[in-house]
Amino acid sequence: MKNKKFINSKAAEKFLDKSKTALDASGYIKGIKKKNKVLLSQAITLCESTKKEDHLLAEQILEASNAYQHKTLRIGITGSPGVGKSTFIEYLGNYLIEKGKKIAVLAVDPSSKITKGSILGDKTRMTNLSKNENAFIRPTASGSQLGGVARSTQETISLCEMAGYEIIIVETVGVGQSEYLVHSMTDVFLLLIQPGAGDELQGIKKGIVEMADVIVVNKADGDKIHDARQAKASYAKAIHLLSKRPDDWTVQVQSCSSLEQTGVEDIWDSVSTYKNHLIKRKEFIKKRKSQNLNFFQRSLKEGIWDLIFAKSQINKAVTELKTQILNGKINPFTASSLLLKKIQKLL
Amino acid sequence: MKNKKFINSKAAEKFLDKSKTALDASGYIKGIKKKNKVLLSQAITLCESTKKEDHLLAEQILEASNAYQHKTLRIGITGSPGVGKSTFIEYLGNYLIEKGKKIAVLAVDPSSKITKGSILGDKTRMTNLSKNENAFIRPTASGSQLGGVARSTQETISLCEMAGYEIIIVETVGVGQSEYLVHSMTDVFLLLIQPGAGDELQGIKKGIVEMADVIVVNKADGDKIHDARQAKASYAKAIHLLSKRPDDWTVQVQSCSSLEQTGVEDIWDSVSTYKNHLIKRKEFIKKRKSQNLNFFQRSLKEGIWDLIFAKSQINKAVTELKTQILNGKINPFTASSLLLKKIQKLL
Repeated sequence: MKNKKFINSKAAEKFLDKSKTALDASGYIKGIKKKNKVLLSQAITLCESTKKEDHLLAEQILEASNAYQHKTLRIGITGSPGVGKSTFIEYLGNYLIEKGKKIAVLAVDPSSKITKGSILGDKTRMTNLSKNENAFIRPTASGSQLGGVARSTQETISLCEMAGYEIIIVETVGVGQSEYLVHSMTDVFLLLIQPGAGDELQGIKKGIVEMADVIVVNKADGDKIHDARQAKASYAKAIHLLSKRPDDWTVQVQSCSSLEQTGVEDIWDSVSTYKNHLIKRKEFIKKRKSQNLNFFQRSLKEGIWDLIFAKSQINKAVTELKTQILNGKINPFTASSLLLKKIQKLL
Repeated sequence: MKNKKFINSKAAEKFLDKSKTALDASGYIKGIKKKNKVLLSQAITLCESTKKEDHLLAEQILEASNAYQHKTLRIGITGSPGVGKSTFIEYLGNYLIEKGKKIAVLAVDPSSKITKGSILGDKTRMTNLSKNENAFIRPTASGSQLGGVARSTQETISLCEMAGYEIIIVETVGVGQSEYLVHSMTDVFLLLIQPGAGDELQGIKKGIVEMADVIVVNKADGDKIHDARQAKASYAKAIHLLSKRPDDWTVQVQSCSSLEQTGVEDIWDSVSTYKNHLIKRKEFIKKRKSQNLNFFQRSLKEGIWDLIFAKSQINKAVTELKTQILNGKINPFTASSLLLKKIQKLL
């Protein structure tokens, strides 16, 4: 196929090598639209870069992305560490590829603030998927600034859509803020849980359950089948205790075994039913619009911050005030109001 | 006592009524230092206000706050809904007051984004505590902007310290981002859990457990005593699986019954031991400094955003671009870069 000639081939590298220094936005756009994975990866790296010129180029590439890729589906997947997210995504991904879809898998993992460790990241676990030419796997976008991670992830989604990937799976590790972020940039949100004795709802945060559109009990295999059935039943009961959703959707609970490869049809059925539910109620397009507005606002906040701190007198003042705060010479309230007055004079 | 003459008294209202229109920063500062609860509440309301003149006054009041209140202790408390946080805080609070301390209880609860409901907020449950003159209870600081909630909560902590409260308890509902926030503005972080059969760690997010300095198994009473003992043992075991902490502290696990009023001494012992551990290693003052730096940076981000959007041409452009995004006439990447260029010209 003509438009795949660059994928995983020497030609791609050659093309890239030749054009590395000269490739401009239109070169990237052309390559990405031709499904060139190397150029797609490079463009994503540009989005993640903190260099100003990189981001400028990234913005030009993104201007070509149609923000209304209504034929794509953005799926967010969360679940506690150990629940088997990677194996599940590999299972789901291969199923979708067999159905003729092209899929991209991204991950959001703001590294643990305490131990600075990364829980995700090892995408090599998705061995089959990563070798498939209809799959694009992008390792963890991480960083200390959640705002930056959010911006580049949303940009990455659009770039993948530009490259013809129809289903974008965004995985997030189930810790804190990243779930809200991923929820705010996807159409369907899946919560993965695993069977276990006891009160199934205990410990799983109400706020996360509230966000889920489909709940999947993974590891329904071996001697855990009975527990899985119980977990499924108690979640199905528990979701009725949650407040009525504004979109009138009744959360569906499914179970599967990523190991024994059972249950993915039911899960995909739930996802598709939800998508159709949204489309019928004209909520799908609304969701996309609100994703766009979220991006716009987040991106402005980050961008303004960057613009202001590019000013050397501000940068210097911030550094000085930080030192004074650390030395106890000024309290942070006074420091902040002093600096804001300085910035106001600039405007 | 002279400096308590205004508390809960007609005199306070009179004082306030007389000065309502004219009270300036020094009036507030004087009143707060005299432990006037009404003025303290009013100053907190000024911090939470979105009106510019209110915040200006708040800033002036805060400039008098000594950022290095080393004699105070800031305790963050989290736990899933239903774990009994309010009852526990009432129990702990009364215990501390009996020990001769003055305590303030604040709450952070960024309302559930989905149902817009508030889980905390009903501080009237702390009936005994709220009547005690040595306790100051401030209902939920909530809001759609987490940044704003963060700023006003940190300001509130300082105001309470200015008013002589030695122990500041900041409660947060165990959902998502608020735990990171509260962790970043307190000295000691308590995680409350309840006994339950099965794998105790399942479902409680690793990131939250990692943040806890002391873990408290609540509801160790009645027929749950055995389960509580088991939960305590398995958490004590589990914390050894976590990565070594930078501050070299071994998390202590305690159990208590807020209902039967047992166990608070052990919990307070753990908290005090941790505090002394920090002081000995000179980490306590470091923590306070980093709380101050966090505030400074967060406050700048929010403040800059406010300054820029006070400009009418920017405000107008944002509104226009939002409409265009909603109508699909522009993609959010282009919109954001257009606006940032406009802002750059201002600088």
